[in-house]
Amino acid sequence: MDTIELPLPDDFHVHLRQDAALASYVRDVASQFGRGLVMPNTVPPLTTLSAILDYKKQILAAVPHFEPLMTFKLSPNYTEETLYAFKEAGVVAGKYYPAGVTTNSQDGVSDFESVFPVIEIMERLGLVLCVHGEEPGAFCLDREEAFIRRIEILAKMFPRLRIVFEHLSTESAVKAVYALPATVAATITVHHLIHTLDDIIGDSLRPHHFCKPLPKRPADRFALRSAAFSGNSKFFLGTDSAPHLKGKKECPCGAAGVYSAPVAIPLLIQIFEREDVLRKLSNFVSGFGADFYGLPRATQTIKYVRNPWVVPEEVHGVVPLAAGETLDWRLYGQV
Amino acid sequence: MDTIELPLPDDFHVHLRQDAALASYVRDVASQFGRGLVMPNTVPPLTTLSAILDYKKQILAAVPHFEPLMTFKLSPNYTEETLYAFKEAGVVAGKYYPAGVTTNSQDGVSDFESVFPVIEIMERLGLVLCVHGEEPGAFCLDREEAFIRRIEILAKMFPRLRIVFEHLSTESAVKAVYALPATVAATITVHHLIHTLDDIIGDSLRPHHFCKPLPKRPADRFALRSAAFSGNSKFFLGTDSAPHLKGKKECPCGAAGVYSAPVAIPLLIQIFEREDVLRKLSNFVSGFGADFYGLPRATQTIKYVRNPWVVPEEVHGVVPLAAGETLDWRLYGQV
Repeated sequence: MDTIELPLPDDFHVHLRQDAALASYVRDVASQFGRGLVMPNTVPPLTTLSAILDYKKQILAAVPHFEPLMTFKLSPNYTEETLYAFKEAGVVAGKYYPAGVTTNSQDGVSDFESVFPVIEIMERLGLVLCVHGEEPGAFCLDREEAFIRRIEILAKMFPRLRIVFEHLSTESAVKAVYALPATVAATITVHHLIHTLDDIIGDSLRPHHFCKPLPKRPADRFALRSAAFSGNSKFFLGTDSAPHLKGKKECPCGAAGVYSAPVAIPLLIQIFEREDVLRKLSNFVSGFGADFYGLPRATQTIKYVRNPWVVPEEVHGVVPLAAGETLDWRLYGQV
Repeated sequence: MDTIELPLPDDFHVHLRQDAALASYVRDVASQFGRGLVMPNTVPPLTTLSAILDYKKQILAAVPHFEPLMTFKLSPNYTEETLYAFKEAGVVAGKYYPAGVTTNSQDGVSDFESVFPVIEIMERLGLVLCVHGEEPGAFCLDREEAFIRRIEILAKMFPRLRIVFEHLSTESAVKAVYALPATVAATITVHHLIHTLDDIIGDSLRPHHFCKPLPKRPADRFALRSAAFSGNSKFFLGTDSAPHLKGKKECPCGAAGVYSAPVAIPLLIQIFEREDVLRKLSNFVSGFGADFYGLPRATQTIKYVRNPWVVPEEVHGVVPLAAGETLDWRLYGQV
């Protein structure tokens, strides 16, 4: 087989940044995805309707045919009126960042229970809760596992709330998502299907592979692959693609994030093909996520051809995932 | 107490590099240590007597009163004559690098049993075997633990061979060293007493803390501290101080190594004092190591005063351990 046609994929977790570079990042995503759930940890964060709509306008100005699915950054401070207005304006989700666990999360949630009233309103309005599930203060490799109990508490307290456990990185979290009710789903990134900790600190230090949550052991990667290949509708793609300029990575205090947007789908085709589960790819990238969010599935399609290409070492000043590597599949028509 | 006088410390594991920078690195070490066990993983490595003696001469040219304890890089290719000549020339140890586990170890040992005949000669001649105890190919966090069985095999096969398990990083290795015969000792670095994996990848990526073996969990650090504070003569200081120019750290494939030479003793005084075990410091830094190697203990002393100072951000183009931090103790007379 030398061509693959997929329903136009959705990226249910993407960072588009701000200012000058925004347009380039949006174009990279829009070259392979029809929709993207846009993360709100901009500076300042997305917390007001005007900020959200202004950001959406900037994204659409870059690529009019791309559909940004907008989010807000969770805090204890929202009123029912505000959240209702968000919902009316098409905002789909609120993002829960525990304080300090990742890029621009210093202003995240530090008191778990303080956000319960806001979450209760979200449940009522049908807004999805997206969670960066890492426990602040825990040892780096234990943060996700330590957070699982909070997801369990939320699922129990708010039984109609849709919760997405974002960018899973451990076997324990995969098991928890399987065990939790159908209201709890999870995203999996491309890089967590590929990397373990060895790819960051195993030989040389690889800053461009550094991200949160940290990729962990081979057994964790295997569990993530098994979930992605399972055909279980709880697991779908959210790339967490996060561009950081080279200088923010190759420095004394490097930023966390992997820029996978330019290579996400070709890499996934390659991974799924090599494991002989290509038939499972379509739902993972363009089915289950839309279903969970209550969005129509894509009607457009996108085509890839088997035609090896070398991933550029740098894209708009950012070193992308798989930089310099040869990938089997390329976007049809891409030169 | 505002001054501390110690017998002049020995560093039983140090990297001095080559060429122009060598003299600066030697001066940093010699400012606080009387002797240093000089690692042979230079380029090319130290494998011949003439190379070893030439390197020793360069070190002495930088600081005539410093005593470099010379080593050779282990391989299956040494004859008894060569090792005898090493011994006669005052070389004290051979260093076992498994292939590919750290800086300049591509030419390390890939077939464990291939070096047994050489090790047997070392045992007979009374040359110490220093081991970088990490198993190539294992998952990064498991490499040291996976190597323990090789240390156990060596200790059993060569009962009179003195073995140093270098730069311990795990609770398992500490336990193994306690359990093994008196012929097996271990070095502990300053940075492994301070760091866990959190200090490399817990928040931002900290390339200047990246080293092999990787610092691991808090429980591992606790075991290392307990061993260093125990007063057990099997555990002594080997800093593994390893200067890498800033550009070799802050780059796409960063080098492993922490430059602790400029701050080693002040940091240790601080650590031991804060844990109220200052009385255990003298043997750890200038007693047990000399005893194990069969060297006379130092007769000179060195004095530190309580007089806080800020560690420079950079020393000869290298970012040292604790850069920018304030340390309690300073070398007497240091401005």
